[in-house]
Amino acid sequence: MNILYDERVDGVLPRVDKSALISELREALPDLALLHSAEDLRPYECDGLSAYRVMPLLVVLPERIEQVQALLRICHARQVPVVARGAGTGLSGGALPLEQGVLLVMARFNRILEINPQGRYARVQPGVRNLAISQAAAPHGLYYAPDPSSQIACSIGGNVAENAGGVHCLKYGLTVHNLLKVDILTVEGESMTLGSDALDAPGFDLLALFTGSEGMLGIITEVTVKLLPKPQVARVLLASFDSVEKAGRAVGDIIAAGIIPGGLEMMDNLSIRATEDFIHAGYPVDAAAILLCELDGVEADVQDDCQRVEAVLKAAGAVHVRVACDEAERARFWAGRKNAFPAVGRISPDYYCMDGTIPRRELPRVLKGISDLSDEHGLRVANVFHAGDGNMHPLILFDANQPGELERAETLGGKILELCVQVGGSITGEHGVGREKINQMCAQFNSDELTVFHAVKKAFDPQGLLNPGKNIPTLQRCAEFGSMHVHLGKLPFPELERF
Amino acid sequence: MNILYDERVDGVLPRVDKSALISELREALPDLALLHSAEDLRPYECDGLSAYRVMPLLVVLPERIEQVQALLRICHARQVPVVARGAGTGLSGGALPLEQGVLLVMARFNRILEINPQGRYARVQPGVRNLAISQAAAPHGLYYAPDPSSQIACSIGGNVAENAGGVHCLKYGLTVHNLLKVDILTVEGESMTLGSDALDAPGFDLLALFTGSEGMLGIITEVTVKLLPKPQVARVLLASFDSVEKAGRAVGDIIAAGIIPGGLEMMDNLSIRATEDFIHAGYPVDAAAILLCELDGVEADVQDDCQRVEAVLKAAGAVHVRVACDEAERARFWAGRKNAFPAVGRISPDYYCMDGTIPRRELPRVLKGISDLSDEHGLRVANVFHAGDGNMHPLILFDANQPGELERAETLGGKILELCVQVGGSITGEHGVGREKINQMCAQFNSDELTVFHAVKKAFDPQGLLNPGKNIPTLQRCAEFGSMHVHLGKLPFPELERF
Repeated sequence: MNILYDERVDGVLPRVDKSALISELREALPDLALLHSAEDLRPYECDGLSAYRVMPLLVVLPERIEQVQALLRICHARQVPVVARGAGTGLSGGALPLEQGVLLVMARFNRILEINPQGRYARVQPGVRNLAISQAAAPHGLYYAPDPSSQIACSIGGNVAENAGGVHCLKYGLTVHNLLKVDILTVEGESMTLGSDALDAPGFDLLALFTGSEGMLGIITEVTVKLLPKPQVARVLLASFDSVEKAGRAVGDIIAAGIIPGGLEMMDNLSIRATEDFIHAGYPVDAAAILLCELDGVEADVQDDCQRVEAVLKAAGAVHVRVACDEAERARFWAGRKNAFPAVGRISPDYYCMDGTIPRRELPRVLKGISDLSDEHGLRVANVFHAGDGNMHPLILFDANQPGELERAETLGGKILELCVQVGGSITGEHGVGREKINQMCAQFNSDELTVFHAVKKAFDPQGLLNPGKNIPTLQRCAEFGSMHVHLGKLPFPELERF
Repeated sequence: MNILYDERVDGVLPRVDKSALISELREALPDLALLHSAEDLRPYECDGLSAYRVMPLLVVLPERIEQVQALLRICHARQVPVVARGAGTGLSGGALPLEQGVLLVMARFNRILEINPQGRYARVQPGVRNLAISQAAAPHGLYYAPDPSSQIACSIGGNVAENAGGVHCLKYGLTVHNLLKVDILTVEGESMTLGSDALDAPGFDLLALFTGSEGMLGIITEVTVKLLPKPQVARVLLASFDSVEKAGRAVGDIIAAGIIPGGLEMMDNLSIRATEDFIHAGYPVDAAAILLCELDGVEADVQDDCQRVEAVLKAAGAVHVRVACDEAERARFWAGRKNAFPAVGRISPDYYCMDGTIPRRELPRVLKGISDLSDEHGLRVANVFHAGDGNMHPLILFDANQPGELERAETLGGKILELCVQVGGSITGEHGVGREKINQMCAQFNSDELTVFHAVKKAFDPQGLLNPGKNIPTLQRCAEFGSMHVHLGKLPFPELERF
């Protein structure tokens, strides 16, 4: 099988005749919003991963599907790469532009087309914000379950492209588990529907294949998501531990007891202190670690589960367990967790947020490993993460102004991801691969596996025009990189500039 | 893009030098169980869809993965097609052999390798029976949720290949939602792992793509499934209606009320009478339709939901609602449902079981449509199905000994599937496409969509050696068939014999 778009990923992209392209677009689509001056392009040079910045060739902001279709046809005919972007909140540089590519901003497709309480689904345009779906469904007692922290801003098209997660994924699944149907345009501008209104579709499961494909297989034009009934009550327990390993073990114990919490989050002492200084959530600042466990459902069920979880936590060695006594305290407990990242930002000039996922049972070992690695590299690491999912977010604290610290942070980050892969985990949970983790994919997958990825990509996009250079590395890149050597963020792309 | 394996699907397969193949296999794998006499092959000529029968070239029953690997290498080198088979309980002819192909029986891979209560997963070989997993997990209070009716016999490898469903899929999802990891061998005998022990894996979601691919992308050698805690209690309501449309509407109303039953099944009068005569389940024989609604969870929750469902059912026009008063009655209610197919078998010389899936909201319309079509074609249709999923199983009653009745049944079946597609549904829910519904795929998908399927197939199996002629029709077949004309079971395969 051929290796795809090598020259695009690992070399300089072919130069595009920008003015000819603009003329053709202006002629074919006179009312298409099109930006091309340096000043106008600047806001689009990065997504939520601001460390990577590239000025796009041009930016288009279509409002009608026919415009997207015509744009794709023109770009395909001219062999111009296209990078799709939603709200630009992604954390792995998945929507990082290309110097020689069009940035296709889908933000103006922001209409909710249908809320159907009987079918329990919502049909929306890709630019609709995640939270807006739940807000529109609320009058029917329904909501859309996946809730990335950016849910107030991120759009559903990006959620599908990244297979976004959130605090409640342990119980309610990732984006892929909450979709019925996605309408797309292929690289050639042909429309296709993946999935169906029914619960299953014959043939290969292209809907699942497409979900999380990071803009490499097609452009999303419409999304039909499943809606869930809102739980009647939710209650939060806060447990404190005198060691992170014990807290890690307690996570497995809760799950093994047959309880599926709505959310199960962990914070270590560094995160607790930083957060408490900032938010005053009432966290125990002397604890080595805390667990926040949310139980939701009907009253009696939640009450029963609360008692069982409390017993499990105590048996696992929790020093203290507290149930939020009212809604206000519950909100305060979560406010701490949700503001933990900015809180850590207050105690260090810079931090690097990792996103490894590991099998739950490995939590104690990996937490110990991270602590050892932190000592070894002389950099502090704050742990605050979705413990129930095994989705870790170690925050490496450093000061980019101190010579060598950035490099040390990168090396440490690489070691942490290597550890995740070693215990059977993965280099990313909910943030995606994007441009950021493209090299780590060489550690995650062998060349046979990457070859299949390339062949699948080719099935949709033979010339590799959609979001080249993201998500799936070429074999050549991995060979150059040294396939089992994991480290972060070396940037061999001439068009990339690192801040 | 090329059209794949046309000659394999639509023409006669290239002749294989059988004795040379046997010699090579005997030499390379002296201890491989290998069947090739007509007498030995006979039991393998069909799977659960006994209407289609083909004698395989030869049958192998390996016991070690290295044997499978060596077999695949030899077959690949000789370009011999391979059809994988588990327990052979499939209902769409997915494991139908090829006259010029090897039937690879994976049934001897029947070991449970690991039950991990903390990680809440089971690691098993592909030949392990579905129910055996739940039995092995039971001491830990866990079970494997998907429960096809054949669960006592069907094997997990086949469940993955067909993305099997069951009564509890509405609440707990299809096979694809209950998998962590699948180890496979590629057509060339290379081993690959799809998915991971962690909840998410980067790159394309090949695990989901593989699930339901009906043996066309690789051979399953190990499966890691998720285990769920057993619900504390389960209760069943039986509601009777004086019209099928009302019962159909009630299904949507229950879901819209924010309740997710463990199972929600429907039977019409013909099925009720047939079943009651056979099983004496205590069904109301004068009802036009009944709904069986199972609610599971913790006691208080189930009690609460029972009351709510009862209210919804009455508001939807239920004539009578009964809660099974004890475990014995609950078991009797389910025994009726589970024996409905054989019960219908007692009132008609032959029946044809369909497997269309439709959006739930379309139930009343489609039930009315089936009734009209039944009158029009002069054949009785019994409806007994997973109503909550919209997964219908109309049973068309006919007598193959009456001239023209088989053809009328086929035409009627085709019309019913056409109706399912028209309302946004699909030609199969849980039984798969296999050989049986290959023509209906032409109605379900257009040529652009089929082209993508072929390209995906090619990514895994460029020569089309794995289970050719199943699941995905060629464009040529659809052109000959007449792309939007749905009917059943014309058999243009010279190697096929119809009973």
